[in-house]
Amino acid sequence: MAEGKLLRPKVAVFGLGRIGTIHLRHIVQSCLYDVAYLIDVTAMHEKIRTMINSYSLRDAVVCSPDETDKVLSDSALDAVIICTTVQGRVDLITRSLNAGKHVFAEKPLALKEEDVAECYKTATRNNKTLQCGFNKRFDVGIKKLHDKIRCGDLGTLRSIKLSARELPSTCTKEYILSSGGFLTDSVVHDLDLLVWLAGERPNSVFAFGHAQSPMIKECGDYDSVNVILKFPSGLLAFVENFRGVSYGYDQRYEVLGTNACAVIENPKESQLNLWDETGMHSDLMWQNAVTRYTEGLKKEIQHFAAVVKGESNCIVKGEEVTFVSRLCSSATESLQRGQVINLT
Amino acid sequence: MAEGKLLRPKVAVFGLGRIGTIHLRHIVQSCLYDVAYLIDVTAMHEKIRTMINSYSLRDAVVCSPDETDKVLSDSALDAVIICTTVQGRVDLITRSLNAGKHVFAEKPLALKEEDVAECYKTATRNNKTLQCGFNKRFDVGIKKLHDKIRCGDLGTLRSIKLSARELPSTCTKEYILSSGGFLTDSVVHDLDLLVWLAGERPNSVFAFGHAQSPMIKECGDYDSVNVILKFPSGLLAFVENFRGVSYGYDQRYEVLGTNACAVIENPKESQLNLWDETGMHSDLMWQNAVTRYTEGLKKEIQHFAAVVKGESNCIVKGEEVTFVSRLCSSATESLQRGQVINLT
Amino acid sequence: MAEGKLLRPKVAVFGLGRIGTIHLRHIVQSCLYDVAYLIDVTAMHEKIRTMINSYSLRDAVVCSPDETDKVLSDSALDAVIICTTVQGRVDLITRSLNAGKHVFAEKPLALKEEDVAECYKTATRNNKTLQCGFNKRFDVGIKKLHDKIRCGDLGTLRSIKLSARELPSTCTKEYILSSGGFLTDSVVHDLDLLVWLAGERPNSVFAFGHAQSPMIKECGDYDSVNVILKFPSGLLAFVENFRGVSYGYDQRYEVLGTNACAVIENPKESQLNLWDETGMHSDLMWQNAVTRYTEGLKKEIQHFAAVVKGESNCIVKGEEVTFVSRLCSSATESLQRGQVINLT
Amino acid sequence: MAEGKLLRPKVAVFGLGRIGTIHLRHIVQSCLYDVAYLIDVTAMHEKIRTMINSYSLRDAVVCSPDETDKVLSDSALDAVIICTTVQGRVDLITRSLNAGKHVFAEKPLALKEEDVAECYKTATRNNKTLQCGFNKRFDVGIKKLHDKIRCGDLGTLRSIKLSARELPSTCTKEYILSSGGFLTDSVVHDLDLLVWLAGERPNSVFAFGHAQSPMIKECGDYDSVNVILKFPSGLLAFVENFRGVSYGYDQRYEVLGTNACAVIENPKESQLNLWDETGMHSDLMWQNAVTRYTEGLKKEIQHFAAVVKGESNCIVKGEEVTFVSRLCSSATESLQRGQVINLT
Repeated sequence: MAEGKLLRPKVAVFGLGRIGTIHLRHIVQSCLYDVAYLIDVTAMHEKIRTMINSYSLRDAVVCSPDETDKVLSDSALDAVIICTTVQGRVDLITRSLNAGKHVFAEKPLALKEEDVAECYKTATRNNKTLQCGFNKRFDVGIKKLHDKIRCGDLGTLRSIKLSARELPSTCTKEYILSSGGFLTDSVVHDLDLLVWLAGERPNSVFAFGHAQSPMIKECGDYDSVNVILKFPSGLLAFVENFRGVSYGYDQRYEVLGTNACAVIENPKESQLNLWDETGMHSDLMWQNAVTRYTEGLKKEIQHFAAVVKGESNCIVKGEEVTFVSRLCSSATESLQRGQVINLT
Repeated sequence: MAEGKLLRPKVAVFGLGRIGTIHLRHIVQSCLYDVAYLIDVTAMHEKIRTMINSYSLRDAVVCSPDETDKVLSDSALDAVIICTTVQGRVDLITRSLNAGKHVFAEKPLALKEEDVAECYKTATRNNKTLQCGFNKRFDVGIKKLHDKIRCGDLGTLRSIKLSARELPSTCTKEYILSSGGFLTDSVVHDLDLLVWLAGERPNSVFAFGHAQSPMIKECGDYDSVNVILKFPSGLLAFVENFRGVSYGYDQRYEVLGTNACAVIENPKESQLNLWDETGMHSDLMWQNAVTRYTEGLKKEIQHFAAVVKGESNCIVKGEEVTFVSRLCSSATESLQRGQVINLT
Repeated sequence: MAEGKLLRPKVAVFGLGRIGTIHLRHIVQSCLYDVAYLIDVTAMHEKIRTMINSYSLRDAVVCSPDETDKVLSDSALDAVIICTTVQGRVDLITRSLNAGKHVFAEKPLALKEEDVAECYKTATRNNKTLQCGFNKRFDVGIKKLHDKIRCGDLGTLRSIKLSARELPSTCTKEYILSSGGFLTDSVVHDLDLLVWLAGERPNSVFAFGHAQSPMIKECGDYDSVNVILKFPSGLLAFVENFRGVSYGYDQRYEVLGTNACAVIENPKESQLNLWDETGMHSDLMWQNAVTRYTEGLKKEIQHFAAVVKGESNCIVKGEEVTFVSRLCSSATESLQRGQVINLT
Repeated sequence: MAEGKLLRPKVAVFGLGRIGTIHLRHIVQSCLYDVAYLIDVTAMHEKIRTMINSYSLRDAVVCSPDETDKVLSDSALDAVIICTTVQGRVDLITRSLNAGKHVFAEKPLALKEEDVAECYKTATRNNKTLQCGFNKRFDVGIKKLHDKIRCGDLGTLRSIKLSARELPSTCTKEYILSSGGFLTDSVVHDLDLLVWLAGERPNSVFAFGHAQSPMIKECGDYDSVNVILKFPSGLLAFVENFRGVSYGYDQRYEVLGTNACAVIENPKESQLNLWDETGMHSDLMWQNAVTRYTEGLKKEIQHFAAVVKGESNCIVKGEEVTFVSRLCSSATESLQRGQVINLT
């Protein structure tokens, strides 16, 4: 049994809020990691101990953020999962990489392109992997779409359209003001997918936006964004994101090529349909990112284990993440200035 | 029986090419008109006589374009259907209206906004109706969507997205050069729908375009267009048109409101599905405008009969058609200059 | 033009009730017939004259049933369309055939198998065609399904399942008592399709039935029927019919072969879908036979014209219609006796 | 942490073949059990040790079937999961219940109704729960359908139709001869669902069957079965099962009530659709029971944990399982004798 344990990377999870809790569950269910440390503020420790108990994590130690150095100095620790808020993320990524740990960190890695780039330089210098949490790339349908494009099934690409809408969020004004804005915080997922699917980088971007919610308007942010982009090959793209829709977590993807058009529709909570005298009714689409992308979230954590164990190269590459950060800034600039922004 | 005949407007059809032939079939099947004249160049007269025979149009007279005055001076003639090419359209519309006839004319009425406006002034002056052939407004699904919006079912509108794609056309270079361009000739349908569905006029428009086809590129025209628009209320819109896709006549419509999102999918040639070891296969979507919009094309001809008989007001209004003409020009200007165009 | 008229068969329509009116509309719109006589009781003559007027049927003569001999003795008359009630149907079919006319008659031709067989003998003797109104065979999807089976796309057939359900009917007790029962009057359509699709005849049939409606129960009839059948090849089949459902005219077809499974779903009134916080809603399926099978109804009338003109053989064959009549009787017998019935 | 462990029932899993391995994975991922023993023949022990290692099951002991007494005499053991072949099932269920353990056992509990009944008597005598592995009841869609029926949304039930088809199985002749036949081994799932959904018991059953596979025919068994049933309320039902289809694990459910019709369609492996010049193509439906019913399989194991801990009553009731066993025998009898079988 000893041998087997060596095959399971020792991991520390920083931040046990919403997404941290989800990643922890997937870490446990994957049976691919040994959970060594769970780090969060003292107020969270009781909740964390309950999780430890319910998951039978006999070897997990609960720590506070001020014990970070102690955690990172554990030479048996292989990797770090960072689910803390965006503010301290760059610092924690940098310290972890410098301590010789592989790092999985939630998106966005940083609010500024230069900080993102710097994180990846640190990873390279330390010969460690930094995986950014672009979980949509691991969705079964999106992965199949990507593979179909790459193997030429669709022909030359002519159009990509991505839609992402979510229910009203419970985000506070503080969160919105500190999140880097709707584009950097949310649309970033789709801009990453766009570039990944396109297989090339856009050279022009233009965006229109609006704030439907008075609170978001007050923050100077947007909850409604239409972005169009043009690529060197002539490929045209459209990305839209809406926060605060009434009906669910609506995520659709479409790629038109010269041979075929591929479309990913919304999966539903069940395949139960009801026919009555008012029409035909089917179930709700999934209502949030966690239920919609459960499988993708599980797979990105499994992928990270494979990366840490040296079995696989990370498919979310540093130069891609860095470019997407620039694209977010350019789209934001277009929104604010009302002009086309050219990306060189 | 004599009385009944008075209830049936006497009509002349100018131009018996593709769309003229279709309108004639619907005119016959509607049993709402008496076909008095069919006008086209001499080379077409034999084909027209065959149609007359197969439709049992005992009272129809075949004429050449140089007999237009004779036709229009027939005081028993109530209305004129104009399906000739765009070049002579303004002239024929004007003469017909001035001769006291109601006019149905194919879109675009003219290539320039001022000419469109002038046609409607002529109509008003003569107290006659000029109905522009925006047949998509008469599609059952689009009509239902429009009604749902107007009665408030969707709440406040946040986004409209319209897609129109068609198979490679057989248009000649000459046609393309004389058609007024992809926006004026094709996208115009969707820009009309957009403004009609929105219930307000956009104040900004931006477009990216590309020519996939070398021949179209040579003409300086586009076969791939992404347009985004912003409306005073904050409504955002996206219209895309692609010519030359591989898979069918793809026409989709989507309106997001604060209460609900409405989507019109592509109907298929049949509801036959086949499941085999490669997946689940369904039939083709309709392959062209005539099969996809048969019902709408029939209904617009029936609507025109009702308008001529004074039973109904024309739902395609002059000020709408005129504004859409301006919108086409603005979108074209944005495409060519790479800038946002503001509509005052 | 005279020549052309000879190409258009002269036809008489007997019975201008619901289905007769529909056939007349399709006859007119097809432009394939000259309507010579419209025959019904005097009480209907005013309504018929209005139709003549609105369809511009200048040559149509209105007659009463007691003028049948006069109509049938018109040597210029080519064909007869019989849409009267089932009671006098055999007599009228026989007289028409004996008068040398081709006959299209609504289903069932007769309530008893021997009468159906006799009608076809009369047709053969007179060298005229008798087409039974099994319009579902002319539905685009069902036709495609039939063709896929016959060309071997599905492989060897293993299962056929047919479902037909309709809204509560307005049939009176008198109609039900004289109609021959639910199986002979309604299920007959699907039993015809079954045998046509299967390409072989079943050797055993068993049925369970129930009357949900008290009135139908009083008549000793059924509004809920499940029939299963076994074929010599091992093919199993299931046919269900329900009268009085709440949600629409539900018609589904499924054929399982060793290579693939083909399924025909219900078309909808439009492709408009609405997504809201209770789920995803689409439009109603068609609500009755006439809207669901419009195209099939049109095509069977066009097919009859081609048959009368000698351009095509009738695809609804006498031996098929006769066997289906026996199958109806056998299924009815199984229902009543609670036993499997073997067909020899 | 000690306290927490008491909350987690100690469980032994008998049989680590295909379904046993699946249940073990779900047991581990549920974090609801302490796995104490894994019992199978010596030849399986190495494979079992690999699983123990990969799941970090530090406290699990591997045993052979001849150590069953030792396992069952462990007073700390709370429950037993039985995934061995049907032959020794009754004996193992009986011994486990008599040893005071709760039992989860795969279906069918036994090949004969009397044995099933006897197992439940033993459970009652020992005041322990015996849960039969009818996992389809735990499928999200089927559960929603059941709830809709019970709360009256569908009105009075008129028809239930259940379809279950699977790819060619790799079952050996030996397996088929010992399995109790297609009805007892496979159709039993759907007959259980049928009675559960109906909320009443059928009084008549009739079946047609066929063997498409020569090997299955040699065994005197069936791979194609159509069953129809009638219930005292007038409800009609149809259940079909086909083994050896080409296209996937096809599982559909339909319930017609006086208010509405509910239909569960096949979920697909992804929502990716491809449109090309041959039509519209979507992904495969799930290909086997484990991928199709993953969530249901997980939930039945979670439900058993809740039952063992006394938090919930078992929703799969003894009298239901016993009746379904009788129904399987009656349907088999109908198949073999070609007669309707009445259930008293």
